Amino acid sequence: MHVHAFSNFVTNCYSMCSLNSSCTGYSEGLSAAKLLKEAGLTVVVLEARDRVGGRTYTVTGPKFKYVDLGGAYVGPTQNCILRLARELGVKTYLVNEKERLIHYTKGKAYPFRGPFPPAWNPVVYLDYNNLWRTLDSLGKEIPANAPWTCRYAEQWDNMTMKELIDKVCWTRTAKDFARLFVNVNVTSEPHEVSALWFLWYIKLCGGTKRIFSTSNGGQERKFVGGSGQISEKIAEQLKGSVKLKQPVVRVSQHPGGVSVETLTGEKYQGAYVISAIPPGLTMNIHYEPELPPIRNQLIQRVPMGSIIKCMMYYQKAFWKDKGYCGTMMIEDENSPISMTLDDTKPDGSCPCIMGFILARKARELIELTKDERKQQICQIYAKVLGTTEALKPVHYEEKDWCGEQYSGGCYSAYFPPGTFFQFTLIYKRIYQKPFGRLFFAGTETATKWSGYMDGAVQAGERAAREVCGEAGSSTSIEVPSQPIRESFLEQWLPSVPAFLSVMTISTVFLGALGLSLVKPSMRPHFFK
Amino acid sequence: MHVHAFSNFVTNCYSMCSLNSSCTGYSEGLSAAKLLKEAGLTVVVLEARDRVGGRTYTVTGPKFKYVDLGGAYVGPTQNCILRLARELGVKTYLVNEKERLIHYTKGKAYPFRGPFPPAWNPVVYLDYNNLWRTLDSLGKEIPANAPWTCRYAEQWDNMTMKELIDKVCWTRTAKDFARLFVNVNVTSEPHEVSALWFLWYIKLCGGTKRIFSTSNGGQERKFVGGSGQISEKIAEQLKGSVKLKQPVVRVSQHPGGVSVETLTGEKYQGAYVISAIPPGLTMNIHYEPELPPIRNQLIQRVPMGSIIKCMMYYQKAFWKDKGYCGTMMIEDENSPISMTLDDTKPDGSCPCIMGFILARKARELIELTKDERKQQICQIYAKVLGTTEALKPVHYEEKDWCGEQYSGGCYSAYFPPGTFFQFTLIYKRIYQKPFGRLFFAGTETATKWSGYMDGAVQAGERAAREVCGEAGSSTSIEVPSQPIRESFLEQWLPSVPAFLSVMTISTVFLGALGLSLVKPSMRPHFFK
Repeated sequence: MHVHAFSNFVTNCYSMCSLNSSCTGYSEGLSAAKLLKEAGLTVVVLEARDRVGGRTYTVTGPKFKYVDLGGAYVGPTQNCILRLARELGVKTYLVNEKERLIHYTKGKAYPFRGPFPPAWNPVVYLDYNNLWRTLDSLGKEIPANAPWTCRYAEQWDNMTMKELIDKVCWTRTAKDFARLFVNVNVTSEPHEVSALWFLWYIKLCGGTKRIFSTSNGGQERKFVGGSGQISEKIAEQLKGSVKLKQPVVRVSQHPGGVSVETLTGEKYQGAYVISAIPPGLTMNIHYEPELPPIRNQLIQRVPMGSIIKCMMYYQKAFWKDKGYCGTMMIEDENSPISMTLDDTKPDGSCPCIMGFILARKARELIELTKDERKQQICQIYAKVLGTTEALKPVHYEEKDWCGEQYSGGCYSAYFPPGTFFQFTLIYKRIYQKPFGRLFFAGTETATKWSGYMDGAVQAGERAAREVCGEAGSSTSIEVPSQPIRESFLEQWLPSVPAFLSVMTISTVFLGALGLSLVKPSMRPHFFK
Repeated sequence: MHVHAFSNFVTNCYSMCSLNSSCTGYSEGLSAAKLLKEAGLTVVVLEARDRVGGRTYTVTGPKFKYVDLGGAYVGPTQNCILRLARELGVKTYLVNEKERLIHYTKGKAYPFRGPFPPAWNPVVYLDYNNLWRTLDSLGKEIPANAPWTCRYAEQWDNMTMKELIDKVCWTRTAKDFARLFVNVNVTSEPHEVSALWFLWYIKLCGGTKRIFSTSNGGQERKFVGGSGQISEKIAEQLKGSVKLKQPVVRVSQHPGGVSVETLTGEKYQGAYVISAIPPGLTMNIHYEPELPPIRNQLIQRVPMGSIIKCMMYYQKAFWKDKGYCGTMMIEDENSPISMTLDDTKPDGSCPCIMGFILARKARELIELTKDERKQQICQIYAKVLGTTEALKPVHYEEKDWCGEQYSGGCYSAYFPPGTFFQFTLIYKRIYQKPFGRLFFAGTETATKWSGYMDGAVQAGERAAREVCGEAGSSTSIEVPSQPIRESFLEQWLPSVPAFLSVMTISTVFLGALGLSLVKPSMRPHFFK
């Protein structure tokens, strides 16, 4: 397989972009095409939509200058996307987190600082602490590149995150926050997703603190001018090779190469094809020969998450005057929004709160009108921020990703219980095993920040290298990343059951015996 | 909407047939088309494959005369398919169950009679009894036509069947058999499926005994000459209107009607379209306008089950000589097959054992060669039947449904946790709500024997009536059905926990108090 063997290279990218777990997105198809073109190959990019960008989508308008309706956030350790942005001359800025965050629960707003809301009740404090510690320590058991080799892989894959949460958490408060954590990170419900897959997903992002944080985490930065520029700039470089409004309907492999047909009846010939669409959306294509049975079944088992991204614009950033940065974590069944971030432009213009309608709530509220959603959102912001100023927005933008035929949903695909282990085990890799001349990119196939723009670039470049028969990857460090540290207390505080055991035993044996048990096993009790 | 308004009627049936939970199958597309043609309308049936029948597939050969590689079984209360068969002149015969069945577990074969294997250990006996009783009584809480109105709908949908089984069963023996029961009925694993959906599915078939039984149950009969004849005979009646090798790639709705394009570039115009393919396979089609968000997400969340159907032919029916009817329920992790039935022809020719490779096992064994599977199957049959005669088959036929692009798997679609309740709630019906001029059939949308050939006919006819704006349905009784009875013991024996409570209390209070507690609630303890 020599490079000169390529006569024509077809990259199929309906939705060439992926969208991150805090709503970012990026073009694996275009990044693959870019790398291949740089290697001197002929490339054609077939895009289903009338625009590039996929799950990233930057639109402009007089009221808000520009806005990322899809994937937007980047942060430290996301060096693939940050490197590409630097090459293309797209700069980042810091998302505002100067003032205090708010945790809204049981009808009250609690300002705080740090990645996670604190707890004043000592039992809840222990329970929260044990939850994060457990999720991270279970994640450490799962090899990023080979999750099927984890010794608990099958057991964890056969349970939902809801089951795991119910086993790890003792308090309703911690269980409820854990649900929000799942909703925010993977736009799905704890009872919908495999525990193995979720633990693996969090691990790939560097753990619970890295994935959930703004400062030093996945939401630290945004792109000046919007994330959509990245796809647009690559598309410019590839101009002539990117064909819009060309949904692929057929991929036919034959000994000499691959034929690709699109919905408009156009036909392309190539030596290889990279599919840069989410795994579930490869169902949109008819294959000849048929896909192998395992892939034919896998692609029915990886639905996309559910989200509506909502931007509320105000005259001024009144929340900053009140000492709030704009980050709100909202636990209220009647609130459409579960999580917000300040989305004001870096120069202070277009004051804005960005909020996510997630998972069950996205499905519930999708049938309302845009204006009804806007009203409900303003009302909850007024409650949480404690001011009627929130009721007077000057503009509202939203994007429902559930209705997008060529994304299927956002941010990313999730694995229901029972699929991730068996299919990665059969493939002996992250289900991106090629099928003849058909290779698979897509952020879902990444082994770092999967589901994010960063994973999209990693996956696109990996697929391009596979086609060239090359190994290796570019490594660089683009923005400073502080190591995630655990404090002494975070490491050594007991879990609630360990604490209760200690208390019981202490009471009975008057304390002496108790001391030796203060260090609980990092492993939760249920799989010993 | 008048009948004369139809200029042309397009029924899209890739996989126009469904396949039942004990492997039957039938053409909802064709049955819809038949009804519409009888009403005087012009109909076109677009079939993706080069044959009609979908998940039913009868092939002929000198070694076995004919064999149903897909859906095959019918039984009492399946009056839609039986009525249609009678109309078309296709007769049924009884599946052999004269001799004893075998339950193979922990390396030993236990002959028995009746739908379920008995238990000699009294604790296991109570546990089995309570399992079937509980599944049926929970099913009674779920309205067939409106599962979302069940008061426990959300709670049950957010748990997997594995969780429910772990809560209901006390003994490993009952848990293991419950797993086999799920595997056999819905070709998927208990940890993969929603408890609400599974309970509803069993209820639609008349309960645990009806669905699992041969005599007086879902596997009572087969069609003389094979089930494939039914589709073939309707196709003959419709001749000229059935277009083979026409996978639909686009459905475009406009005020005057619907345009349908196929993979070969042909275009059809119609007033309405009935999609008679499994819900997940509607992902194969590009829509204009796009599907509503809820349907766009639903169709990613309904994977097809996993099965390889295997027929082993022998010189003679040696199992009958040993007093066995050929039905084996096999609990052995190393056995490919979990369930068998005698598949000898009604005249005694072509002695054959039909066996299912199900769910996890289908995915595990799919990568073996046909001959490797054959060897493994003969070996387990030899063990279970206790004779080396099983090692000397004269012929072997198998069909892997996981690899079928236009079925996706078999028998039917399943619902992972968290989808069934929310989507039926939003649709306020069994997710077959039409989208403009696009109506949905498919056995998955039936409200009786969903997943079976019978459900396919019901759904196809229902969709045809919806298009005509008609209500009502044909009712008839085709073969005698005995009511499913619960014996006094089955009804009143305590569950294991109730029994243990009784024993404990009896011991403490010397019996007197105990008597009043022997009648446990039918409701299992966990949702009181």
